[in-house]
Amino acid sequence: MMYKDMTPAQRREEHEKVSAQFDAWKGKHLKLDMSRGKPGKEQLDLVSDILTVLTDPAQCAVDGMDARNYGELGGLPCAKRYFAEVLGVKPEECFIGGSASLTLMYDVIAKAFTHGLRHSEKPWCKLDKVKFLCPAPGYDRHFKITESFGVEMITIPMTETGPDMDLVEEQVKDPAVKGIWCVPKYSNPEGIVYSDETVDRIARLKPAAPDFTIMWDNAYCIHEFDGDFLPFRDILTLCREAGNADMVFEFASTSKVTFPGAGISVMASSVENIQYMSKLMGIQMISYDKVNQLRHVLYLKDKDHTLALMKKHAAVLKPKFDAVVTALETEIAPLGIAKFRRPKGGYFVSVDTLPGLAKRTLALCKEAGVVMTGAGATFPYGVDPQDSNIRIAPSLPPVAELEDAIQVFCTCLKLAALESMEK
Amino acid sequence: MMYKDMTPAQRREEHEKVSAQFDAWKGKHLKLDMSRGKPGKEQLDLVSDILTVLTDPAQCAVDGMDARNYGELGGLPCAKRYFAEVLGVKPEECFIGGSASLTLMYDVIAKAFTHGLRHSEKPWCKLDKVKFLCPAPGYDRHFKITESFGVEMITIPMTETGPDMDLVEEQVKDPAVKGIWCVPKYSNPEGIVYSDETVDRIARLKPAAPDFTIMWDNAYCIHEFDGDFLPFRDILTLCREAGNADMVFEFASTSKVTFPGAGISVMASSVENIQYMSKLMGIQMISYDKVNQLRHVLYLKDKDHTLALMKKHAAVLKPKFDAVVTALETEIAPLGIAKFRRPKGGYFVSVDTLPGLAKRTLALCKEAGVVMTGAGATFPYGVDPQDSNIRIAPSLPPVAELEDAIQVFCTCLKLAALESMEK
Repeated sequence: MMYKDMTPAQRREEHEKVSAQFDAWKGKHLKLDMSRGKPGKEQLDLVSDILTVLTDPAQCAVDGMDARNYGELGGLPCAKRYFAEVLGVKPEECFIGGSASLTLMYDVIAKAFTHGLRHSEKPWCKLDKVKFLCPAPGYDRHFKITESFGVEMITIPMTETGPDMDLVEEQVKDPAVKGIWCVPKYSNPEGIVYSDETVDRIARLKPAAPDFTIMWDNAYCIHEFDGDFLPFRDILTLCREAGNADMVFEFASTSKVTFPGAGISVMASSVENIQYMSKLMGIQMISYDKVNQLRHVLYLKDKDHTLALMKKHAAVLKPKFDAVVTALETEIAPLGIAKFRRPKGGYFVSVDTLPGLAKRTLALCKEAGVVMTGAGATFPYGVDPQDSNIRIAPSLPPVAELEDAIQVFCTCLKLAALESMEK
Repeated sequence: MMYKDMTPAQRREEHEKVSAQFDAWKGKHLKLDMSRGKPGKEQLDLVSDILTVLTDPAQCAVDGMDARNYGELGGLPCAKRYFAEVLGVKPEECFIGGSASLTLMYDVIAKAFTHGLRHSEKPWCKLDKVKFLCPAPGYDRHFKITESFGVEMITIPMTETGPDMDLVEEQVKDPAVKGIWCVPKYSNPEGIVYSDETVDRIARLKPAAPDFTIMWDNAYCIHEFDGDFLPFRDILTLCREAGNADMVFEFASTSKVTFPGAGISVMASSVENIQYMSKLMGIQMISYDKVNQLRHVLYLKDKDHTLALMKKHAAVLKPKFDAVVTALETEIAPLGIAKFRRPKGGYFVSVDTLPGLAKRTLALCKEAGVVMTGAGATFPYGVDPQDSNIRIAPSLPPVAELEDAIQVFCTCLKLAALESMEK
């Protein structure tokens, strides 16, 4: 029975029952973490053979150079070829980074501010106002980057097919709007895959700002945990065909393929953009770790081999997502107090509670020993206007712990809903 | 006999002889490289056991965390302890970086421009003028960083004991002067070790700018190739004792200890500065590669063990430096056309020719197939006002090649000198 359809007496009874459950959970003094998209130990063990693929120094002679020595700013050619195949781009469109693509994203925004991008009239730090489009709910670390540079962030609502493109097309008429954050496949946190129409409309944007930049974070490009690999189209080609060759930077990494703490990453863009950025990056670095690039190429080999590995990750992840979504379907769906999806890839389950319940739910979770991503984190400035979105990250805890954690969450969400209905 | 004391006839005879030598070298179609401080293959092979010290995933459980996973922005505690011992600072004063300390230096300057440092009144990009003191000859990549941000660079002459401190103390009275680049031990390129008095005077500076910053690049802190390890004092403590706790950032790396293309680095500063920088760095990264940090700690162990390894590097490097300096002493010193030192550490030999000979000498070297660091590179904006300083990097070529290369260099320098005397 939906909570809203209960009589006051029924709700009081339910409240007593749920309060007792909450107290029982509290009494267990749990310490559970569903806060970040962190792979669990089983996944790390799964890929630990990467520690042994490169032990002979003779292997370091590759692509006509010694990977151990200085040089090759943009990364080993074999690493470029690897990522080019995964993303469906050209090797010369790739710049290889270190253990976080986030750093490469930051570099693009930072360089835009200090030096300007290829088509910038001046560095963004010299402008009175810089605005950025932020599809939300979205990835908190994206928003933190633009916030850190004092950018005015404009929330773009997410739909089932990606960002609300009518609004995006309207907003880009403003020359102060300099870019948009996108997670096109298994969006963080909702797990939405942008539709072909959405991707086409993004590639064909005609922004007023000549240096408008699509930050295309393809973080989950090969990260199915349910079903087969879902092919995606090459955004670089789509932009080029639309006459927007320099308008997009695409990012990906091995953070959730090998070790999150020791991976490699890629920034892909037009050859001209990569040359422009390389000139600026050449001031700040010699090259990212080329031995680790080689280690990754030796271990991951190619796209097919990597997709086979991702199936093994999926086998670990699927029971975790199932545990979460099944609990939500059983415990929450019938009550009419929140909506959610069953994603097929990515690292999160996104829950939209009735307005005004997110903060209280998470405060209760904390009280009961379950750490979650802070309420509001999925919105610019950390402020969810509806106080409704909650991001659940099921990947880290073992299934048994996760089953407890999601029960705690359901209990807390119910309690928050009942409290609010009594007011 | 010094060239200047020769009669015109003697000089003509010498010119003919040297020209013939030059033509003979040219006829050999050499391809030799003395341009960058790149370790040679023998040094890379010497340290390649680092590829096998970390092959068991169980080793990754360290300091109460899993090095393979996300987290620990400032680096593994064991890596901080390692660098703290080497530099004589505290672990909590260390932030661990990736394969180039250059990137950490860039970050400090970049953050100063976009966000300001701890004591900045505003970000440097909001100031009309930012000036930086550049002891020269110095490291071209330092100067490139400040040049890239539009900083006005002020050349400070180097003396036998470090930068001309009278001039430095005078310059810092200008509030637009925001910092100084320093390589305190085996300076690049001259191999000068700052005297205790110089270091004390630097630590005790009372600059007008509240956010004046000493960029203390201790790149060669353990890099003796001739004789025993020369202890150095902790600049962080010296600054703190002088009431300048936040005035210095120190940098070091394993680039010339293990693999240049896959090392780790450190930024050391006051705990308050590290906390301030970490807050900003936390926006752009999750952590640098922690598995590689662990690999380095397992391989290098501690300061004593590292110093023993540096003795092995020294055994490879010393014959190379000897070959260069001995040739200079034999071929050049008696002619009175250039001055140079015999350094005991670092990666370079610096030659000061008579004014106006550097560019021509290097052009001749290029003609004869020997690549050297470009003339002027050791000065701000790449302009050596005397056209005199030449940086020789003997580390990369095998000794046999190096002996040829330095003979070519001596021939070219003689030829340039003789040409100029005929004008």
